[in-house]
Amino acid sequence: MIRIVLDCFGGDHSPEANVDGALAALEQFPDLKLILSGDEEVLRKLLQGRNFDASRIEFLHAPQVIGCDERPTDVIRLKRDSSMIKAIRLLRDDDSVAAMVSTGSTGALVAAALTRIGRLQGIIRPAFCPIMPTMNGGLVGVCDSGANVEVTPEHLRQFAIMASLYMENVYNVYKPKVALLNVGKEAEKGDELRQTAYRLLSETAEINFVGNMESRDLLSGKYDVVVADGFSGNVLVKTTEGTALELLGKLKKDIYSKFIYKVGAALMSKMFRDEKEFMNYQNYGGSVLLGTSKVVVKGHGSSKARSVQKCIEQAYKMQLSSLGSKIEEVICRYDHYEL
Amino acid sequence: MIRIVLDCFGGDHSPEANVDGALAALEQFPDLKLILSGDEEVLRKLLQGRNFDASRIEFLHAPQVIGCDERPTDVIRLKRDSSMIKAIRLLRDDDSVAAMVSTGSTGALVAAALTRIGRLQGIIRPAFCPIMPTMNGGLVGVCDSGANVEVTPEHLRQFAIMASLYMENVYNVYKPKVALLNVGKEAEKGDELRQTAYRLLSETAEINFVGNMESRDLLSGKYDVVVADGFSGNVLVKTTEGTALELLGKLKKDIYSKFIYKVGAALMSKMFRDEKEFMNYQNYGGSVLLGTSKVVVKGHGSSKARSVQKCIEQAYKMQLSSLGSKIEEVICRYDHYEL
Repeated sequence: MIRIVLDCFGGDHSPEANVDGALAALEQFPDLKLILSGDEEVLRKLLQGRNFDASRIEFLHAPQVIGCDERPTDVIRLKRDSSMIKAIRLLRDDDSVAAMVSTGSTGALVAAALTRIGRLQGIIRPAFCPIMPTMNGGLVGVCDSGANVEVTPEHLRQFAIMASLYMENVYNVYKPKVALLNVGKEAEKGDELRQTAYRLLSETAEINFVGNMESRDLLSGKYDVVVADGFSGNVLVKTTEGTALELLGKLKKDIYSKFIYKVGAALMSKMFRDEKEFMNYQNYGGSVLLGTSKVVVKGHGSSKARSVQKCIEQAYKMQLSSLGSKIEEVICRYDHYEL
Repeated sequence: MIRIVLDCFGGDHSPEANVDGALAALEQFPDLKLILSGDEEVLRKLLQGRNFDASRIEFLHAPQVIGCDERPTDVIRLKRDSSMIKAIRLLRDDDSVAAMVSTGSTGALVAAALTRIGRLQGIIRPAFCPIMPTMNGGLVGVCDSGANVEVTPEHLRQFAIMASLYMENVYNVYKPKVALLNVGKEAEKGDELRQTAYRLLSETAEINFVGNMESRDLLSGKYDVVVADGFSGNVLVKTTEGTALELLGKLKKDIYSKFIYKVGAALMSKMFRDEKEFMNYQNYGGSVLLGTSKVVVKGHGSSKARSVQKCIEQAYKMQLSSLGSKIEEVICRYDHYEL
């Protein structure tokens, strides 16, 4: 039995989407138990008349909600009765709770997770690793994508090890191809951080390092893991999402500009639906936080039920595969490299 | 009369595309004179039978060509007879030559321009500013996009001033809206570099600073200038180009997967052509180097005639609007801010 606490508030479609996602996940995994964090009365009402095994749902009553504009440090101090902070505290204190999923404020979650949950042994900095679809039907993980805006080469090596094990254990990718995000392919490209990281990654036997990646190749399918500082990793992920959304939006607008286009598009409606689904991050779950001593998954603020379900699936699989201890096992083989 | 030297070799479609682009630019601007740098015999052969005013074309014979894999520092020392280095030297030595356009190696061009041409008064670091189309039919400039991978807040302020004047003078944008690339909208987001730059930009009266931009909003049309360090600016620009190309490629592939899609696409062929043209960087010219004492424009390595013509147009307009002295005039009002 795997027990996961789900923060049911704080997202754009909370708590309805979170509750729907929870029920779907319970159907998907028979040995899953969920603890729903949030206003118990509201949650119980949402569950009324729904079909589920009541023995597999518990409640963690939390009357407060964290807004996305609140300062992370204030939240930890002042919102101790919020659904997110209570979930984090339960995760910290209860050994039988394996993981936490939240669609609330990213800043608050990172701050709370880092100060309350702690890190895996040997890990200097936990990092985010969202997943994107590639053009050949695969997936690529980007680590870090925003938890650490300033990093050292050793941080980047740790991100590479964690993300590589993640892709291997959760997505069954064989020997994930790991690349370093850089401004050119050659080893000597980029600043000192990138040059030193390139050397460190080349020397790390446990990963399949294939060299630098230029950002235009993210979706090409040539790479399974891209290692980056949190600033440029964030730019990489958000630019990809933004460009895809803007382009699909433009297509849609242009289709409506002429009757003949509408006719053409009607014939292609299934294809356009498929393209939209393909680029819809809701289908790929959330951004897992790698390196914390317990599993934390951050769903997109705009997550709907499908995305919440996927986030729970990610947390479940991370726990099931004992990802944390596998990461510790590899990390402890390396003395930290000092710049 | 404006005289511009055009490096005719080093691009993927050189020298044919460069010569075709040159002839188109001569037709576009009656007071333009071009100096074609490269193997004179080859260039003269390409011009045979073509219709042009011979008094407006000169030749700068240069038998060597720079490969895109050559080390920039080697190039400057060893390829003194290459079309690029001879063009740079002419630009430096001849007061009547206003600008240079090249589609050759970026690294070699930056190294040669910075060491041979020098900077505008007060400018610490010249920076690249490519242009991208926005979804509302406008344009956005990204500065820097790769010339400086490590920067200070003062560099970012100078990039903002230069790019703002560029958009105003060359693209007639009224009070360009300037944003700082960051991992969130709030003023306190990002690392120390971004936080200090945010403050400096807010204090700079000559620009219309509108705050931080998240990378997903690049194409939204809300901004005219995005300021970034060369590393993340490079990621921003290349990810946008890459995602657009991958998505259009996927659409094309999917269309060919079913007969009914092909029929639909046939009805929409004009629309798809328009989308492709819209995202085709060839239509927007090159990446201008802002801050050098003379105008340098870098066209994409894969530039065809249309793109070469656009690059010449950019160089011509930068010179015509006296952009360099306008930049110097604003920059000299600021003592350099020390971190």
